[in-house]
Formats: sequence, C-alpha cells, structure tokens
Amino acid sequence: MPVPDRKGLNIVSLDVKDVRFPTSLGGHGSDALHTDPNYSCAYVTITTESGRQGFGLTFTCGRGTEVIVFCIRTMKRFVLNKNAADIFADFGGFWRTLTNDSQMRWIGPEKGVAHLAVAAILNALWDLWARLENKPLWRLLVDLEPEELVSTIDFRYITDVVTKEEAIQMLKSKRAGVQERVKILEQKGYPAYTTQVGWLGYSDEVLASLCAKYLALSFTHFKVKVGLNLQDDLRRCSAVRKYIGDDKFLMVDANQAWSVDEAIKWMKALAPLKPMWIEEPTSPDDVLGHATISKALKPYGIGVATGEMCANRVMFKQFLQSGGVQYCQIDSARIGGVNEILAVYLMAWKLNVSVCPHAGGVGLCEMVQHLQMWDFASLSGTMEGRLVEYVDQQHEHFVDPCVVENARYMAPKMPGYSTEFIPGTLEKFAYPRGSEWQRMFNEGIFPLPDEAELVNP
Amino acid sequence: MPVPDRKGLNIVSLDVKDVRFPTSLGGHGSDALHTDPNYSCAYVTITTESGRQGFGLTFTCGRGTEVIVFCIRTMKRFVLNKNAADIFADFGGFWRTLTNDSQMRWIGPEKGVAHLAVAAILNALWDLWARLENKPLWRLLVDLEPEELVSTIDFRYITDVVTKEEAIQMLKSKRAGVQERVKILEQKGYPAYTTQVGWLGYSDEVLASLCAKYLALSFTHFKVKVGLNLQDDLRRCSAVRKYIGDDKFLMVDANQAWSVDEAIKWMKALAPLKPMWIEEPTSPDDVLGHATISKALKPYGIGVATGEMCANRVMFKQFLQSGGVQYCQIDSARIGGVNEILAVYLMAWKLNVSVCPHAGGVGLCEMVQHLQMWDFASLSGTMEGRLVEYVDQQHEHFVDPCVVENARYMAPKMPGYSTEFIPGTLEKFAYPRGSEWQRMFNEGIFPLPDEAELVNP
Repeated sequence: MPVPDRKGLNIVSLDVKDVRFPTSLGGHGSDALHTDPNYSCAYVTITTESGRQGFGLTFTCGRGTEVIVFCIRTMKRFVLNKNAADIFADFGGFWRTLTNDSQMRWIGPEKGVAHLAVAAILNALWDLWARLENKPLWRLLVDLEPEELVSTIDFRYITDVVTKEEAIQMLKSKRAGVQERVKILEQKGYPAYTTQVGWLGYSDEVLASLCAKYLALSFTHFKVKVGLNLQDDLRRCSAVRKYIGDDKFLMVDANQAWSVDEAIKWMKALAPLKPMWIEEPTSPDDVLGHATISKALKPYGIGVATGEMCANRVMFKQFLQSGGVQYCQIDSARIGGVNEILAVYLMAWKLNVSVCPHAGGVGLCEMVQHLQMWDFASLSGTMEGRLVEYVDQQHEHFVDPCVVENARYMAPKMPGYSTEFIPGTLEKFAYPRGSEWQRMFNEGIFPLPDEAELVNP
Repeated sequence: MPVPDRKGLNIVSLDVKDVRFPTSLGGHGSDALHTDPNYSCAYVTITTESGRQGFGLTFTCGRGTEVIVFCIRTMKRFVLNKNAADIFADFGGFWRTLTNDSQMRWIGPEKGVAHLAVAAILNALWDLWARLENKPLWRLLVDLEPEELVSTIDFRYITDVVTKEEAIQMLKSKRAGVQERVKILEQKGYPAYTTQVGWLGYSDEVLASLCAKYLALSFTHFKVKVGLNLQDDLRRCSAVRKYIGDDKFLMVDANQAWSVDEAIKWMKALAPLKPMWIEEPTSPDDVLGHATISKALKPYGIGVATGEMCANRVMFKQFLQSGGVQYCQIDSARIGGVNEILAVYLMAWKLNVSVCPHAGGVGLCEMVQHLQMWDFASLSGTMEGRLVEYVDQQHEHFVDPCVVENARYMAPKMPGYSTEFIPGTLEKFAYPRGSEWQRMFNEGIFPLPDEAELVNP
C-alpha cells in the first residue's frame, strides 16, 4: 500500500475559508431554481507537522456557505492531531468516524451541511495523499491495488448491490490493459460537453454567439437550462438545435423545477427537438418519481440524468436500482469525498449505468476529471456514452486548472487533486473580508453581510 | 381565517440557544448507533413588537447542536422584521421562502442541518400562532377550515400522491363528527406506547423492573432496542416477552444498524417472539431497501416502521408509495415544521398507512401529541392501529409537559405548542455556559467544549 511514512505527518492545522465569487452579476449559472447564484466554496487547507499541505473544497451558491464553514470548524475535532498516514492506512474507518460520530450523525446523517463539510475535508486529505505520492490524484487511484482502493470505501448499506469482495474482483478483472488506457488518457484526454450555451439568464444573442463559439471549439454535446416557461424553452431549444444541427447532441436541464407529471408533459412537448437527456426533472430525493419519468420518456428516446444534489451513496444506489437514471451524474463535492464517489462508480458499473459527472461551479471540473479518468483506466474501461460536463468559469483561480482542448479534458499532470487556489484568490474573494468584497460593499453592488457571516474567521 | 391582527406583530427578535442535558451519564437513549447521546436541542424564542412570544425547538444528540444553532442564526434574515400575521396568512409561501432561498437551498435542499434549523423556527411560529389564538395547537389545527389548513402546506413534489384540492376534499369529508372526536380526546386522551424498558445501555435488572413498572401503568405496547448482538437481543426480547405476556405487544428498534439482507435474517431469528414491528432496520434513506424488508417480513406478521430520520415529505412520499413502511413515524422536529408534517399525514391517509409518531428526546412528546390529536379529530377519525411513542425523560423542563395517564396522552389545554422551557432550564443547561455544564466541566465529568462550540452566544 502506498501509504507514506508517518514521520512529520501529524495534522497540526485545518484552516477553512468562506470564498465567494460575484457570478450573479452576469447571470452565469442561473437556472430554474437558482436564479442568482454567487458561485462559492468552503475552502479547506490541511497542514502537517512537516509543512506538507492538502487543499479541498465543497461548492456552494453564496448564502449558506458560512454554515458549511462553521460545520467544518466543528469537525476539526475529528482531524487535528491525527496522523495522515494512519488515516490513509484505514481510510474507510476514518470515513466512518467523520460521517457517523455517535452524537453528531443526528444532524445528517450523511446529507446536507454535514456531508458537504465532510466532502471538503476529505477532498483536502486526498489532495494531500496524492501530493505525498507525487502523483495527480487519478494516477494515485489507478496505481492503488484493488484491495487498497476498496479499503477506502465504507460499504455499509450498499452490500445488496456490491460487496467489498465483488468490488475487488471487478477491479482485478480490469487490471489487464490499464497501462494502455492510461496512455490513451495522457495522449487524447476525455470527452467533455458544454453547459455554457444555455443558462436561463442569457439573452438569445448571447446564446447564438456561444453556440458558434463552442461549435468552433469542436464540442458535439450542448446543454440548455429549461423549466420556467415552456414557450421560452421551445424557442431557446429550437434555436440551439438549429445552430448545432441534427448530428450534434442536445441535453436539457430543469434543475428540479417540476412535479413528476409536469416533467413528463413538458418533456413530451420538447421531444421533437430530440434531447438526449432531461437532467433533474424533479426533486433530487424522488427516486420513484425519476423511475416513473424514465419509463414515460423511454419511448421518446430521452434518458433521465441526475446526481449533483443526490445526498449520498444510498440515494445513488436506489436511483441506479430503480431504473430512475440512465446517466449518473456524480458530483465531486457533495457526497462524502472520493471514498464515497468510488462506491457510486462501482454500483453504476455493476448495474450498467453510464457515469457522466456533474461539473462547473468552483473547482468541480478540476476535481471530477480525475475520477472519470480513473473510471476509464481501472473500472469501466470505456468512454462509450460517457462525457464530463464542462463550464468555463472560475478556472483562473486554480494553480492547476483543468485544460479542455478539442472538447476533451486533458489528463492532469501536477501532483494532487487540482484543488489549490492561486495566491491572491483568498485575499480578494474571501467573504466578507476579501478586498474585492470590501470594494463591492463600498460601491453598493452587494448588501453588507449578516452578523452570522462575520463569525467565521 | 383566524389570522390575528397585524398590529404589534412585527417580529423584532429571534433568539436561539444550544441546550444540552447530560443523558449519556445514565445510558438513557442509547441504541445501536447512538451509544452516548446527550439529549439536546436548538431552542428558538421569537418575540414580536408587542412582546408576544413563540417558542420552538429541534431535537439533537449533543455534538453538532452548535451547527444547528449557527444555521438558525443565519436564517434570521428570513424572519426578522416580517409581520407574524402576514406569515400566517400565507404560511405555505413563507415556508418556501425559508426552505428554498435561491442560494441557500444548495446546502440542503430540505434536509440535514438546514431543515432541522427550519423546523425549530417553524415550531416557534406555530407556537406563537396558537398562543395568539389562545388555544393549544391541536385545537387551532382542528378549528382551521380545510382551505385554511391546506394553505400552510407546500405541495411541490407531492402532487402525484395528493393535490391541494384533494386534500381539501379529504378534510371536508371529515368535518362531520369533529366535535364528538374533540370530546373523546378531551375525556380519554390518545394511546401511548413505552420505549422506556429496553435501551441498549440498560442492565437486565433495570429492564425487569421497568417492565413491571410500565405494566402497572397500564401500558400494552413495549419497545426494545436491538441490533448490536443477536444473542443479546434474543435474550433481552425473550425476557420482555415473558414479563409482558402474549397478550401485550412487543416492538423492536434497530436504529439503522443493518444492511438489507442482515435485517431480514436478524428479524427472522427474532420472529418467534412475535414483534409487531421492526423500526429503522437499515439506512433511513433506503426506500427500496425498506420495501424489500417489508415484503420479506410480511409472512411473519412483522411490519416495518421508520420516519424519525426521514429527511422530508418527498422521502416520506416514497416510503408510503413503495410499501416500505406499515407504520409511518413522523417526527415533530426533523422535517419542516407542522406545515410539512401535515402533508405527510395527508399522504399517509390517502395511501392507507397508519401514523405512529416518533417521540422522546427533548420536547418531541410535548409537540407530537398535538399533531396526532389533530389527525384523529380532523383527518383519519380513528385511533385504530395508531399509538404515540412515550419516553419519560426531560418533561420536567417544560411549562406544559405532556401528561400520560393509564398509558394515554391527555389532551393539552394550555395555549401554544407545549414548547416553552421553565425558568431556570436555560440558566442551567445552556451549553457550554450554563451553570450545570460549568459545574460538570469543573468536576471533570465532561471535557471542555471545542472552540466552535463557544462561538454561539
């Protein structure tokens, strides 16, 4: 097991910052339910005795980030003074400590604020591990022996779909050819699709120019936000279909706007435009609702996609079991870190559902590319019917930003999980004390922060 | 609509306290996953311009309460300077404002910390409304016209089971006989069962003496915690069955200890002791798992019960739709207040599942009795197959504690939702600054609080 020597790896600090970008000013990221997001994150820095660091984050939409930050501060009790090498040697056990403290689990369990906080901490730990191994995270994952990789996962509540032993066998059966697939990734990268063309807040002119731009960049799959007004959706989707032509792919995303019946009715109306999938048609908690919608839309060739707000592996398990999703959209920062996401990949592969990760926001593209590349090299062995979402926002804040060329994510090369901010980002965008926020408060662009938002350092 | 005059009802303050009781010292409340709970709550006091007050809480288990308290502080922005009469006049609309802020919903939505915070705030508002009407909450609910009651509910995502119009019709069809049923409640109360006999932390001697005590108190239904060790469970359940006899009812509660397959196997082993239900056999998120367990245990006459950790009405909807629960255990402080719980009652009635509320903890008995009494008077019209959990703990802290006589909850008479603490409780048990906590820290009974626990006032 490539677990580093314990020496110097006692964790001596866990720092967390509320970081927000004023994306609502441009209508970027606007959808049916999130009309004015300020793309944000809770940003964790873990430091060991020897000065080694890991960086991790969970994505948020502005208000409420302060609650995640506060929750992470309360979770320091589970991390400080632990040795990072001990954590990696029994990562599954540590995962359960963090997610199932006998008192604290009541405020989850494994969902909402507490689980978003856990995700940021775990992402920082995985970043640290990959840095200690001097590898990009996807290579660390690929290089772990099946038994080692599986030891990081808590299989509680998912053994009816996949057991630890089965997972090891599945991974072992794919060891042949791993190095060839690694070479393919290093040479050609992994397919991406764009969500840039159709945010609800964009005008028709912006939409047209973005279609032209992303076609020129070789994209073949285009996602459009829908769900507020059917006539408007028909007009915008027709326009996109006309711009991209019949040989390209259109996906639509309702961001939870509909009831089950509305979703079916609305999508039947959009069916002539041949969308490949409808994403988040209804409540992210409604497994049976998604199954009903999937069944109703199957004759129209429309699949159902969801996952960015799926609370944990138990919910993913049911979406996969029930036929409720045809495209499983894991998110790198909502469920409990790489550990739990690996469990979802294993279940999706077992149940024959394609994983097409959610990305965008802050750092989600940077992280999720690592996971999908591991899947190609070590588990599914295929890119067939699989793409990673790409949104061209907030990458400039990262030391190792994702690189998308010819509509493909290029394999990361730097050690770590691509989660470190460049110098200056915290100074400018830490909320509410960063210099950019102070300027915007002074100029009246945003209202002053609430009392509670001032509590976190 | 009995909405009070707006005069003086501007909300001028929302105070919230972290309140903890050292119940772990006695093993009270211990179960398979919660081995050392300190029964706690986030306690909200809302005050209007005219000095009228409402009190509300959400139950917690100790560590983590500080996160709920902090989240409630951030939610002041949605409550302060609103007029309470306006809130009650469009309570469904206000509910959506509180639960679905366009930025903040990302950290839920409608689950975990954020939803527990919402529950405490809404419980305080309902308490205020009932006090303004000078009625116990259950009478306020009974006296609302069907249209008025239903206007407090957000039907988003549940219209595939019950629509607003259907709900109004269901309630209207039960208006005849309401006053007779109110009289029955006032004279005879509502049946309770006891969980006092079988906490995992109790010795066999304590168990025996508690069985004798609760038999003498006329209880007919006894619940025992199981799930850590099958041999131990067989011994303890056999003992309880022997003490209570074959004419009484035994329920068992695994508090999420098992996988789906384990649950079935374990319960088949306990089946000869004729348990009426198995509560929380597996993950509280696993609808399909519960449905599988229900189906497997049906031939043994064992029903499945769950709900105390069910995240919201959408999850309840699926448990009810799937046949995953035969006993629907609403909790008065986890999902979004009375508003959302009413929606669950409506769905349960429509789908013919009995509601047997979860209670215990801090204030849960006090609150949930009101809801179940409303159900009897206004919706189901029956007590058949229905009981409210009763745990004899922490009632002494309430101004209007629940009263259980002859194993029946007596109908509350005081105005409000029975949620107000007596003077002194906050002074003693506010965490970490209350006098009892200071004493216990000084005596080394509990470790000193963490930095984050000191942040909240």
